[in-house]
Amino acid sequence: MRLLRSHLLLLLLASSAAGSLLRTVPEEPSTISSGGGGGGGGDALYCDSWRLSVETNDAGPWTRIPARCIAFVDEYMNGERYASDSEVIAGEALAFAEAVEVAGDGKDVWVFDVDETLLSNLPYYAANGYGSQDFNETSFDEWVYLSKAPALSASLKLYTELQALGFHMVLLTGRAEVQRNATEQNLLFAGYGSWTQLILRGASDIGQTAVLYKSKKRAELLAQGYRIHGNSGDQWSDLFGSPQATRSFKLPNPMYYIS
Amino acid sequence: MRLLRSHLLLLLLASSAAGSLLRTVPEEPSTISSGGGGGGGGDALYCDSWRLSVETNDAGPWTRIPARCIAFVDEYMNGERYASDSEVIAGEALAFAEAVEVAGDGKDVWVFDVDETLLSNLPYYAANGYGSQDFNETSFDEWVYLSKAPALSASLKLYTELQALGFHMVLLTGRAEVQRNATEQNLLFAGYGSWTQLILRGASDIGQTAVLYKSKKRAELLAQGYRIHGNSGDQWSDLFGSPQATRSFKLPNPMYYIS
Repeated sequence: MRLLRSHLLLLLLASSAAGSLLRTVPEEPSTISSGGGGGGGGDALYCDSWRLSVETNDAGPWTRIPARCIAFVDEYMNGERYASDSEVIAGEALAFAEAVEVAGDGKDVWVFDVDETLLSNLPYYAANGYGSQDFNETSFDEWVYLSKAPALSASLKLYTELQALGFHMVLLTGRAEVQRNATEQNLLFAGYGSWTQLILRGASDIGQTAVLYKSKKRAELLAQGYRIHGNSGDQWSDLFGSPQATRSFKLPNPMYYIS
Repeated sequence: MRLLRSHLLLLLLASSAAGSLLRTVPEEPSTISSGGGGGGGGDALYCDSWRLSVETNDAGPWTRIPARCIAFVDEYMNGERYASDSEVIAGEALAFAEAVEVAGDGKDVWVFDVDETLLSNLPYYAANGYGSQDFNETSFDEWVYLSKAPALSASLKLYTELQALGFHMVLLTGRAEVQRNATEQNLLFAGYGSWTQLILRGASDIGQTAVLYKSKKRAELLAQGYRIHGNSGDQWSDLFGSPQATRSFKLPNPMYYIS
């Protein structure tokens, strides 16, 4: 033990940050930072951890945000953080895209989900408890038919940049075919244009999980000769399943979960 | 955005019904929250977004943390947030585990990675720039042979709780077979015990990516009749690949990336 400690001391002295190491090395069998969750950070600390677990899919399927996190989600979505998170992820997508060799035959595509990816339904969710209430299909469909959802700014910028790089846009949404006109109208209103395909759920897709439906549609795209370089979506069910894009980009969404 | 927010406030005051949304929607094509990344939040805002993109794997392969994020990662790791994030994820893992029917034949297993999952190398990384420096295998191996890494508190608690539920523990690490004794000694020092298998990289595994090596080992476990219910790791390469556990749990690690 003493020998080990002196070795550790040598390691400390050799390092450029010995001071901070001294603080953290335990004398006895020990653990790192117990009790952080209850250490006074309260709802903000818990809710930020809950949000991470949602974004990493650790939380698994869930139906409503925790009641104690409503104010947190409000602040996250309407403050700087949601925009910043979206921008950093879009920047990483663009950095990847810039390294792709685009053939120029119209077959190099990027797949985008629609809701909470290209379009933001934040106005609707702000009026409906930020995901703390049970999903109300009737009132959400009323919102969809208004065709007034704004663009997610980082996605609109990425969309335009990808088009400038020569990628073609495929929009793959869980919305139903009956909502095609309203969706197209909303996308144009928000500033999107010139997509190659807008794929909505047809009669035979209704009732399938998003993972199954979207994987099937990606397979059809490959069968049509498209090369799917990137896939951007706010749900893991936009991205998981086979076949996948070369790179998948999970956008933040702490308001709802789709399996 | 400020305009949108004031409209939303009106909306909230007026009614929660979707019909009133008509009044609150922007009149012109609009976007949600432009410019958040440069809106004065500075390094903390950027680094928190960078961290999310790492945890969601949006960042893709990376070698060093951004230089501007060293202080952020220090504070994240040593403050309440790392502990809280780890605890919330461990809680979600336990909630899943409690719903599993354990047969009692010793074949119901949970796979744990070792570094930054069961054991914390935070003392080492605190002395070496929190991942801002190139990885130095020699000095890291010296640290490994000290066998003094503390437990990650949330993982030790989960490990013990899973054993109480009847799960058997399989430890699957990228460490080399030559480090078996030091690793066992460290695990025992940190409070872990009674694992079923500790799997390290053998001669034939050296040079393989972690995804390939760990998937292969999970396949061998299935071939041995084990049922892999859960898999906890701080790298996506601990969790991706086939076969997978029924549920995978990504633990936080903003200090390094392993492909």
